[in-house]
Amino acid sequence: MSEQEQPAIHKGLAGVVVDTTAISSVNPETNSLLYRGYPVQELAADCSFEEVAYLLWHGELPTDDALLVFEATERENRPLDPTVKRVIDDLPLTAHPMDVVRTAVSVIGADDPDAEVSTPESNLGKSVRLFAQLPSVVAYDQRRRQGLELVEPHEELDYAENFLYMTFGEVPDPVVVDAFRVSLILYAEHSFNASTFTARVIASTLSDLYSAVVGAVGALKGPLHGGANEAVMHVFDEIGTADRAEEWLDAALAEKRKIMGFGHRVYKNGDSRVPTMKAALDALVEHYDRADLLELYTTLENAMGERKNIKPNLDYPSGPAYSLMGFATETFTPLFAAARVTGWTAHVMEQLASNSLIRPLSLYDGPAERHL
Amino acid sequence: MSEQEQPAIHKGLAGVVVDTTAISSVNPETNSLLYRGYPVQELAADCSFEEVAYLLWHGELPTDDALLVFEATERENRPLDPTVKRVIDDLPLTAHPMDVVRTAVSVIGADDPDAEVSTPESNLGKSVRLFAQLPSVVAYDQRRRQGLELVEPHEELDYAENFLYMTFGEVPDPVVVDAFRVSLILYAEHSFNASTFTARVIASTLSDLYSAVVGAVGALKGPLHGGANEAVMHVFDEIGTADRAEEWLDAALAEKRKIMGFGHRVYKNGDSRVPTMKAALDALVEHYDRADLLELYTTLENAMGERKNIKPNLDYPSGPAYSLMGFATETFTPLFAAARVTGWTAHVMEQLASNSLIRPLSLYDGPAERHL
Repeated sequence: MSEQEQPAIHKGLAGVVVDTTAISSVNPETNSLLYRGYPVQELAADCSFEEVAYLLWHGELPTDDALLVFEATERENRPLDPTVKRVIDDLPLTAHPMDVVRTAVSVIGADDPDAEVSTPESNLGKSVRLFAQLPSVVAYDQRRRQGLELVEPHEELDYAENFLYMTFGEVPDPVVVDAFRVSLILYAEHSFNASTFTARVIASTLSDLYSAVVGAVGALKGPLHGGANEAVMHVFDEIGTADRAEEWLDAALAEKRKIMGFGHRVYKNGDSRVPTMKAALDALVEHYDRADLLELYTTLENAMGERKNIKPNLDYPSGPAYSLMGFATETFTPLFAAARVTGWTAHVMEQLASNSLIRPLSLYDGPAERHL
Repeated sequence: MSEQEQPAIHKGLAGVVVDTTAISSVNPETNSLLYRGYPVQELAADCSFEEVAYLLWHGELPTDDALLVFEATERENRPLDPTVKRVIDDLPLTAHPMDVVRTAVSVIGADDPDAEVSTPESNLGKSVRLFAQLPSVVAYDQRRRQGLELVEPHEELDYAENFLYMTFGEVPDPVVVDAFRVSLILYAEHSFNASTFTARVIASTLSDLYSAVVGAVGALKGPLHGGANEAVMHVFDEIGTADRAEEWLDAALAEKRKIMGFGHRVYKNGDSRVPTMKAALDALVEHYDRADLLELYTTLENAMGERKNIKPNLDYPSGPAYSLMGFATETFTPLFAAARVTGWTAHVMEQLASNSLIRPLSLYDGPAERHL
């Protein structure tokens, strides 16, 4: 590519279609998100997270028999190997929780004697293993930061119940479990976002599935991506009470701060996940008797709408919801990772089924040829 | 993007220019590669690997004083923290060596209390740390697989000498050190290849530099990318002797096997790195008195040229060169990673200096909207 041609530069790949996908459909015009054709709000209303994971991987919801088999496999895969536990124990408490997830996935991969086997069956098995083990990693890391012992998984509990049980040592009220289940389903998949795209780029070199997920975890960590739900909670903490929200927002906008939890590269006018997650948040607010939090939420949302005409994205209701459930703010992005590993692995398997190395070009704008 | 519009699909991003870069210039028409304007063959002839790393990061070769400071910093950063050593020791010997590198970089990042600080100075410091520590990781992992103890770095040796010293317990003949230095310089940087692009996508979320490098290591692991130099050596082992090369190639081509070490997505007619690396290989062949290996090399190259008119890429001479130096074949891709970490980190810093989230689109081709 000679410089004279001045090719179009697709910075950020905005608007560039990289590939086809059958996993999810994001329609920015109707603000809708479909997983394998099903509106995500319907899945959130009626399905377990296990059913949604199965749907993303297989393309269809499981039959009753297939679901029983899958649930049993997921439960068997939950316990962490001793190596993974030792490595987590060896990481300093100053480490970012996403660094712990990233390292744990890398060790799970290094520990798998079949890591390099890349048949569809093997990759599905690895996907189930990561799906089953990430809650153990995330729950244990939150607990060790609080000076608490690891809680071993409970095989009579479903995915959402067990995740909360391993984190808090008990299964909370059904309204809490349900809000958590809804959040996981809503976070599971979102087409070619930066972390999923990272996973597909890595898989396109025919590297292994674990390497693709490790890379995706690193991408999700970024504040412009998965870190946004944590940033929302920091904003809530910074504002404090609803009566200070407008003043805070005006000052933040005057400083040209990016207000996290609002707007989206793809959706221009709100997305279909927000009303579903907001309903779950409303239920939590009532359960925990925290009308004050809802007042802050609504005041900031309305003020942002009036001043900038920008609507909340999924991170806006999910941040305070996770906080009410008892999760430390620094655990929010790891929760997102545990949910999104379903979508990441579905995309890795789709990439491998019709692979082409993802290798773009760049336009050189440095010094002209020179000699030593 | 509605389906009716049928947007162009840029599968593999072939030919798509994603951004500008001032780090290197790849000209497929003249088969040349420039780092910051300097032809790579001139850098390989005259520079230490430390000078090239400095050039990639800073845009200019170091002054004598700057080089002294940089060399001292590199040497100070070489020893591994005890946590990193323990984690490596804990990984099974069945683990792919690139899984060990991936995990070690992840632990180095988790261990850095300043991992989340993203000033240019801090990111440069992290780049130097990874540059200095990857040889320790790679050398130690090769040794532990041979049942040998870790050799601590030697601060009176330069980068290339010390890398070989830590791997083999002694500094080999200057002709060997020189061939190794040349290979590192040639592998250091190659614009928007799949692993570098992975690093830039991860960095574009404003995740940390270590996360970007961890992802890049995972991408480089793939046989379509960094794994190719190992594949070349496996081919040489499979063929055995020169008199069997043509028969082997005809059988492989009949089976439509991809012949590793030949051809390149970007260069269509050979690349400028090959003659430089081939000269280094020739020197090694003479030093080790292995004319038989050269005969096999030449016979396969000529046969491939006659049958497919495809020229070797850098992996073709570097594979046998690393083998002659005494590296286990499974260590070749980790060597590539240790060299390329210079380019990866230069690209992360360039991405951050003018960032835009890298988030492409996909075209949905799955089931139409349906309901539960």
